Amino acid sequence: MKKTKWIWHPGSFELYHSMLLHNRRTTSKTYADGTRKSVYYYPMWRIDSPHHNAILEKKATTKKPETLKFYANTETANMVVDGIAYSVGSEVILEAGEHTVCLQGFKKDGFPAFYVEGDTFKTDREYVVAEGDYKGRHAGYSNYYTNPTDEVEKFKFLYKKVNPVSKKQINGGVLFDFGKETFGKIHLSGLDGEERYVSLGESYEEAIDSAYSELGLNVEGKCYDSEPVAFRYIFVPDTSKCEACVDFEYLPLENRGSFKCDNELINVLWNVCAYTMLLNSREAFFDGIKRDRWVWSGDAYQSYFVNYYLAFDTDIVRRSVRMLRGGDPIRKHINTICDYTFLWISSVWDYYLHTGDEDFVRDIYPDILDMWEFIEPRLNSDGMYERKPEDWVFIDWSTFDESGPICAEQMLLARAYESMAKFAHLVGDTAWEKHASECFEGIVKRTNELYWNDEKGAFVDDYESGKENVTRHANIFALLFDYTSEERKEKIIKNVIFNDEITKITTPYFEFYELDAMCKIGNFKYMTDMLNSYWGGMLNLGATTIWEEFDPTKKGIEHYEMYGGKYEKSLCHAWGASPIYLLGKYALGVYPTGVGYKTYEVKPNLMCFGNIEGTVPTPNGDIFVSLDKEKCEVLSPIDGGTLILGEKKYEIKKNEKLTVEI
Amino acid sequence: MKKTKWIWHPGSFELYHSMLLHNRRTTSKTYADGTRKSVYYYPMWRIDSPHHNAILEKKATTKKPETLKFYANTETANMVVDGIAYSVGSEVILEAGEHTVCLQGFKKDGFPAFYVEGDTFKTDREYVVAEGDYKGRHAGYSNYYTNPTDEVEKFKFLYKKVNPVSKKQINGGVLFDFGKETFGKIHLSGLDGEERYVSLGESYEEAIDSAYSELGLNVEGKCYDSEPVAFRYIFVPDTSKCEACVDFEYLPLENRGSFKCDNELINVLWNVCAYTMLLNSREAFFDGIKRDRWVWSGDAYQSYFVNYYLAFDTDIVRRSVRMLRGGDPIRKHINTICDYTFLWISSVWDYYLHTGDEDFVRDIYPDILDMWEFIEPRLNSDGMYERKPEDWVFIDWSTFDESGPICAEQMLLARAYESMAKFAHLVGDTAWEKHASECFEGIVKRTNELYWNDEKGAFVDDYESGKENVTRHANIFALLFDYTSEERKEKIIKNVIFNDEITKITTPYFEFYELDAMCKIGNFKYMTDMLNSYWGGMLNLGATTIWEEFDPTKKGIEHYEMYGGKYEKSLCHAWGASPIYLLGKYALGVYPTGVGYKTYEVKPNLMCFGNIEGTVPTPNGDIFVSLDKEKCEVLSPIDGGTLILGEKKYEIKKNEKLTVEI
Repeated sequence: MKKTKWIWHPGSFELYHSMLLHNRRTTSKTYADGTRKSVYYYPMWRIDSPHHNAILEKKATTKKPETLKFYANTETANMVVDGIAYSVGSEVILEAGEHTVCLQGFKKDGFPAFYVEGDTFKTDREYVVAEGDYKGRHAGYSNYYTNPTDEVEKFKFLYKKVNPVSKKQINGGVLFDFGKETFGKIHLSGLDGEERYVSLGESYEEAIDSAYSELGLNVEGKCYDSEPVAFRYIFVPDTSKCEACVDFEYLPLENRGSFKCDNELINVLWNVCAYTMLLNSREAFFDGIKRDRWVWSGDAYQSYFVNYYLAFDTDIVRRSVRMLRGGDPIRKHINTICDYTFLWISSVWDYYLHTGDEDFVRDIYPDILDMWEFIEPRLNSDGMYERKPEDWVFIDWSTFDESGPICAEQMLLARAYESMAKFAHLVGDTAWEKHASECFEGIVKRTNELYWNDEKGAFVDDYESGKENVTRHANIFALLFDYTSEERKEKIIKNVIFNDEITKITTPYFEFYELDAMCKIGNFKYMTDMLNSYWGGMLNLGATTIWEEFDPTKKGIEHYEMYGGKYEKSLCHAWGASPIYLLGKYALGVYPTGVGYKTYEVKPNLMCFGNIEGTVPTPNGDIFVSLDKEKCEVLSPIDGGTLILGEKKYEIKKNEKLTVEI
Repeated sequence: MKKTKWIWHPGSFELYHSMLLHNRRTTSKTYADGTRKSVYYYPMWRIDSPHHNAILEKKATTKKPETLKFYANTETANMVVDGIAYSVGSEVILEAGEHTVCLQGFKKDGFPAFYVEGDTFKTDREYVVAEGDYKGRHAGYSNYYTNPTDEVEKFKFLYKKVNPVSKKQINGGVLFDFGKETFGKIHLSGLDGEERYVSLGESYEEAIDSAYSELGLNVEGKCYDSEPVAFRYIFVPDTSKCEACVDFEYLPLENRGSFKCDNELINVLWNVCAYTMLLNSREAFFDGIKRDRWVWSGDAYQSYFVNYYLAFDTDIVRRSVRMLRGGDPIRKHINTICDYTFLWISSVWDYYLHTGDEDFVRDIYPDILDMWEFIEPRLNSDGMYERKPEDWVFIDWSTFDESGPICAEQMLLARAYESMAKFAHLVGDTAWEKHASECFEGIVKRTNELYWNDEKGAFVDDYESGKENVTRHANIFALLFDYTSEERKEKIIKNVIFNDEITKITTPYFEFYELDAMCKIGNFKYMTDMLNSYWGGMLNLGATTIWEEFDPTKKGIEHYEMYGGKYEKSLCHAWGASPIYLLGKYALGVYPTGVGYKTYEVKPNLMCFGNIEGTVPTPNGDIFVSLDKEKCEVLSPIDGGTLILGEKKYEIKKNEKLTVEI
């Protein structure tokens, strides 16, 4: 039997936590008098409120009497049973028969939530919105909140006390090192009570460079407890006696995915990626844990894929998707970035493919329709993306020819339409299915016509400017999404990917797409070389988490500089964790071919390794795969699998170890 | 010099208080076990949240140094001066020169508000929204909050202790009578601590009829303090010793308008109307003080007109207009009622005409445009209103032929377009001016073509149903707004107004329109007869405030019944206060002919009275008028006035008493 859940107006939980988390970023500033202080730093996009009202109902016929017990997080709430309003704490006996239970409430400083113990009428997704814009939409819920004593507005983090691994006197103060990047509430004690700026650092250099460190604490008093914050080092100035520890704050996510091979650097890398993910897996998938601690759609998009090969937590994906969608009306692209809107739509399809969670697709479908209502009137007469003054065209931290609508955006728009056609098919919206399919095909066709440059043998950023600028990005999307001919793909690989004159990717963000594309076309060496050199390069510099950007040509503290700030770069950025996805999908070789792993393939590949082994999570258990030069073993808890080794295929039987000698 | 004001994201103050006030209505219910309890009762329309984030800025060049002192109602707020963020409490010295001051903040359980002491950069409407959907729109403010110690989320009511005028033992309990309808926090003392339902009543009958009274208190303990609530009588059961008093809660509105005549009933009526208005003049203009205590657009529309002849409080009109507009997106008509949306648009023009507050028209103009974006796609191909399933077609509590789009709605839509053309002209939006003018003329023309029935000599509700049903409402609008020919007007007066077979108006709501129309065409007797009989009828039944509905043919407690509830009728309903407007505009005869009383006329009329005198407020002082059979006197503090007596016109000179012998 399904658990009773706390329920609320759909999206309220996510809008509430999104509002809180997007409003707690801080940064440090130096003032005219030389003092440095931590101040709040707000997003440039609209932050929406949760609905402070909710009205949810369920109509059903009960076959036997049942007792309803009503809980709510606000005293103003009513449980209206067949027209009679009962207040919080009421117990009502229902006779067998037809009934309507309506839950209503208002909460000024949060969102109203309800919990009804009962049988047929226990609270869960089956309740629907009874009035207003969202009429008929299913109640919001979280699998975290299933107990009547739960406090739904308090996010369910766990805490663990962590002490520094070292402490030393330096520059007239004390420097604490926690051994690796961490996140939590800092406790300082043994202070003299004087006001001071305590400097934090993801690097040693940042922490002791108080005048420039990105994050710090405005400390007063002899003891001090901070809000949760990210750091590895703490520097407390003007003291020799201070003590520090941290309440490490985290989600109890289990790493169901695993990977091991005979290359220890890669094993370390995998763990560093997993830890990077853990730190950034919170109310939603964050970009970075020092900065911005915000939910960025393109960043989250990649975290979803890593998650499908690591914790396989479906709640955090749903939360992220809803937070990114925000409230109504949609007046700007998600995070103001057009590519992030297109990726948001695609991400829901990937979620469905990996999890088989049809309820969520149905629940979010009206929100996706609203998104298209925003997107479509802004397309040009060919149905292609055209930049509006308020749009941020991101794609990557790289230089594009942005005079006109750039090629990579068209590919992401096509991808969104391709996903949309599939959603529409799923929910039986035939008009939209037809429309989205046509738009998808039209954009792919026109992009190939307009942006392909025969002389360059590549897609150019822009077809109107005459600059014929080639960047890797659109060309990578063409490979990855299969949006061009085999002949053109060959040309792209030669003229773009293996062409050193084309600016290299410097962000792990776009390495995700590049390496995914290269693996997709079977060039695994390109990927493993990059893990060793690019990711390995960060590990060699002592990284305990993956960085936002990495340029191997830089030296010393140059590595920490970004956006014009000496230490503004994030050294723990989720978009660096893609090796987990790449190794799970292409080395262990496990991926769904049917929705929710109803069917799947295991196509392991040793790549440059002597042996590999690991697990890949699915909605119904973890698939174990090992491979060396002699044999391959697969053990799977689910039906529907096919092991592919070279040209040969083997059926994988549920719970029976399959061993194939090579 | 203008006062420094607390400022916020435009609309936040109103959305916040709207949210609170629409979520505090209660009603009493009887349960299966016979107990009666007060429970919350929620609106059927979406209640919006205030913006929990704000970012406002001002750029200016200062000629001399100035010191800025920064206050905010949230610790997370920053005052960013030329890019440097200062926290709450900071003092910053600005040198002469160009500067940008940006105020940012977040408040979870309310709305962020800022106050900067300074010279050029002191906070007021000149600050504009710096980011997001509302970019460039002026800061919100209220003239009530001009002191740095103000608490902007606390509405500035005043309180006065009031004791009951009588107390008596009845039915085993104690009945308190406060002598007239009142509103405030009830204090009960001397109770025995037992839980009980204390019954309230606007009438004696309601209070002692505990099983049916609309409002009550769930009382526990020996002393009890209620939330503010409306009542005249309190009945405390099962006691003989209890005491009661009330903290009367009110706004310090001054009755600048006044009226006196030689008919004492009318003088009493005027005061009862003024008291009815006072009770319903709160965060906004409410419908009724017992029920619903909500802001209904049609009700507020009439209160605006009464206000222009009574307190002339511009803040409460602006607050009401913003609360009615609500947040974004617009997905239903205001209060779900289409006529209320059309009246909302018209009301802004009337506000401008009476007050000359061009700032407000400019500030609210984008909100009006959004409203048209909602309205227009729902009109039919002729540009006429057509009912959608979710629309409530109200017009009045009366029976219409509602098979198709009804005539009265077309007239209100035309009126809204007529106002819109004027707004568009004011703000220089020539495209909308042309469009609105054309739509206005088109609707008036088509309404006259389609709905006029020659046989009936009247407008019918519907032209398609074949029922040829005539009600007063559309015909009254045609007279009032001058939307038909003189010939047809004559026919309407004969065939509708003076035709007893056409159902009479039973609500003071529509009497407002009917009497306004009749006065407009010079039939003052119709109006004064109605004041004496209809309003006088309520006074004769002991009304201390004006009722929601009155049917002289009913008897005893039948008068209190409405909506199927024995005492559900509101006995203090703002829409009954229109005699103040009618007597001010048509007896004292004062009305603006130019915006904000730049020009105005005084056209007094003795009507059925032997003498009249009174004052009418304007933005720049009150105009005194007296008239008897011998002479007329006018004293006005402003220029631009013309006294009209019969065919004769006299210039009214500022501050010089004008006396004309008749």
